Amino acid sequence: MQQSFGGIIRRQQHLIRCLLGDYCNKDTFFLVNKGTRMQSVMIGGPHLEVDALSILRSISPPLDPTKHKGQAGKIAVIGGCREYTGAPYFAAISALKIGADLSHVFCTKDAAPVIKGYSPELIVHPLLEESYNIREEEKTSISKKVLDEVDKWMERFDCLVIGPGLGRDPFLLDCVSDIMRHARRSNVPMVIDGDGLFLVTNCVDLVKGYPLAVLTPNVNEYKRLVNKVLNCEVNDQDGPQQLLSLAKSIGGVTILRKGQSDYISDGEAVRSVSIYGSPRRCGGQGDILSGSVAVYVAWARELVSKGKVDANPTMLGCIAGSTLMRKAASVAFEDKKRSTLTTDIIECLGRSLEAICPVG
Amino acid sequence: MQQSFGGIIRRQQHLIRCLLGDYCNKDTFFLVNKGTRMQSVMIGGPHLEVDALSILRSISPPLDPTKHKGQAGKIAVIGGCREYTGAPYFAAISALKIGADLSHVFCTKDAAPVIKGYSPELIVHPLLEESYNIREEEKTSISKKVLDEVDKWMERFDCLVIGPGLGRDPFLLDCVSDIMRHARRSNVPMVIDGDGLFLVTNCVDLVKGYPLAVLTPNVNEYKRLVNKVLNCEVNDQDGPQQLLSLAKSIGGVTILRKGQSDYISDGEAVRSVSIYGSPRRCGGQGDILSGSVAVYVAWARELVSKGKVDANPTMLGCIAGSTLMRKAASVAFEDKKRSTLTTDIIECLGRSLEAICPVG
Repeated sequence: MQQSFGGIIRRQQHLIRCLLGDYCNKDTFFLVNKGTRMQSVMIGGPHLEVDALSILRSISPPLDPTKHKGQAGKIAVIGGCREYTGAPYFAAISALKIGADLSHVFCTKDAAPVIKGYSPELIVHPLLEESYNIREEEKTSISKKVLDEVDKWMERFDCLVIGPGLGRDPFLLDCVSDIMRHARRSNVPMVIDGDGLFLVTNCVDLVKGYPLAVLTPNVNEYKRLVNKVLNCEVNDQDGPQQLLSLAKSIGGVTILRKGQSDYISDGEAVRSVSIYGSPRRCGGQGDILSGSVAVYVAWARELVSKGKVDANPTMLGCIAGSTLMRKAASVAFEDKKRSTLTTDIIECLGRSLEAICPVG
Repeated sequence: MQQSFGGIIRRQQHLIRCLLGDYCNKDTFFLVNKGTRMQSVMIGGPHLEVDALSILRSISPPLDPTKHKGQAGKIAVIGGCREYTGAPYFAAISALKIGADLSHVFCTKDAAPVIKGYSPELIVHPLLEESYNIREEEKTSISKKVLDEVDKWMERFDCLVIGPGLGRDPFLLDCVSDIMRHARRSNVPMVIDGDGLFLVTNCVDLVKGYPLAVLTPNVNEYKRLVNKVLNCEVNDQDGPQQLLSLAKSIGGVTILRKGQSDYISDGEAVRSVSIYGSPRRCGGQGDILSGSVAVYVAWARELVSKGKVDANPTMLGCIAGSTLMRKAASVAFEDKKRSTLTTDIIECLGRSLEAICPVG
């Protein structure tokens, strides 16, 4: 058994080296040796597509019967309010379906019973508050209580997903800003999507210079981010270069720009994932992606921390999450066609993962 | 890919021309060229049946991987109160299953958690209020708040469905009347069914002269509408002519009169859809129809606005929605027989659509 795991680990190392080698062999990239870390830097050109399936295989951990609950990942979604309950559910259940051991949701009190009702698999904390529900003089004490409660859990989490169905209530967003500051101090990675991106676009300092932050904007969210940070319009002629500049300007966060192809940059390299997904654009697919990226970032980080992989874990996590999401969407679409919904795609995550990366 | 879309669009134009040609070739219709718009006018006769399958194919948009979320349609259902929660769910989920990207429900606070619980795919706004829940002196401020909140969203919607499970609370119906006036000012199409028809029958001015309004009465709702507007009884000997007069009297709204055959008129033409559906008359089928018509009206309107189709989009939307609903009901009945329920029919929407209008 031990030997077999050793084999898997050697294969992982080989594959990740292949990825880095890829960077090397193309004239669009060169390698920079920063201490013990080999980093790839893009200097322009079209060869951005990665061997995404190999990367996904490389960072999916072997299933090891000696492990105990929690070791395959504990994810928390911060989101869910009176108006939105589907989005945090999609993100949290996707994390479990990919292989995380535990998936928590921190949401408002109104949202909690509904989200609990979607699935008994999730641990749902009815904790956040919206302005309409509290008095002005309660705000400080409630804010402290929320933070104390989240803090009890913070260091147990391998990654947070901030934003699915969060809404835009100012008091709630203030609390979430505090949660993000605490997560940062505890070095917990964060995947930021949906209303979390609204928050970050208005207060870039929340993530600036934090290499464990991942932003996953769609076309409109990306536009707002470019406007705000680069003070210009989106330039589609030189999209990858602009993405690189944006990620660099936010101090090396990783940005996954969603679109027909997904483009990913950490300010040092740009890579793309173009595996065919689905032409359906029903709401909720972004939530599957954020949950998936969170799991893969956690797994990639584990490999990096053990010295088994030498690459930016947030880049690897984005590549793997994007790949799986696209594969599952294509499998679901094959069956459901125009009527494909987000829940159909979630049901295909396991099968898609097994097709790419069989357990045996 | 572009070429293939071009081909699809040419096919659409050809098919819509065939439909109009149909009008031409039968002695019961003639064409009137009003500026750039060719309109068909019925002058009596039995040849009302359209080539409904071709129309459905023609207005279903090609699935285009370059599109982003929202571009295939954003629908909102105004309905759902303490008593009724199934109807708005049926309408909203049907819109998604046909291919809309986003489906919202605006309902009362009591109804929201229940509707959310039916499916995480819907965005449910707990917004409306019924009289029993508020004090007299709060009415003005609550009414304003409801309207402000709906207004934030209004222009994003491609079509509203007004009425499924709305109930008949006077205060709530006053708020919905205001929502309808705002929708009209924003040129948002409206499909009106169920308690929305109760409201409209009592206040015809809400839709009078608005060509983007669609009424979908069943036998009793139609009777009340004829009594109120034409001040006479339903005349089944000359049903199509009376339907035409009714639609004309309400200033050119489109009426889909549900029955063994569905008859549709905008006051200028009458068409029928008689594709075999199901003999089951379980409650909720009208809600599937209203959600379906909303999606097809939105898609037809998009084609018309781009100059790709030259016909009344509400007529096309009614024909396509009726066709799909009937096909799905027949597929469900084939399997479930006497026990066929509305949820069974909804489950057959995707398969039925694929049979009529395959994606590939």
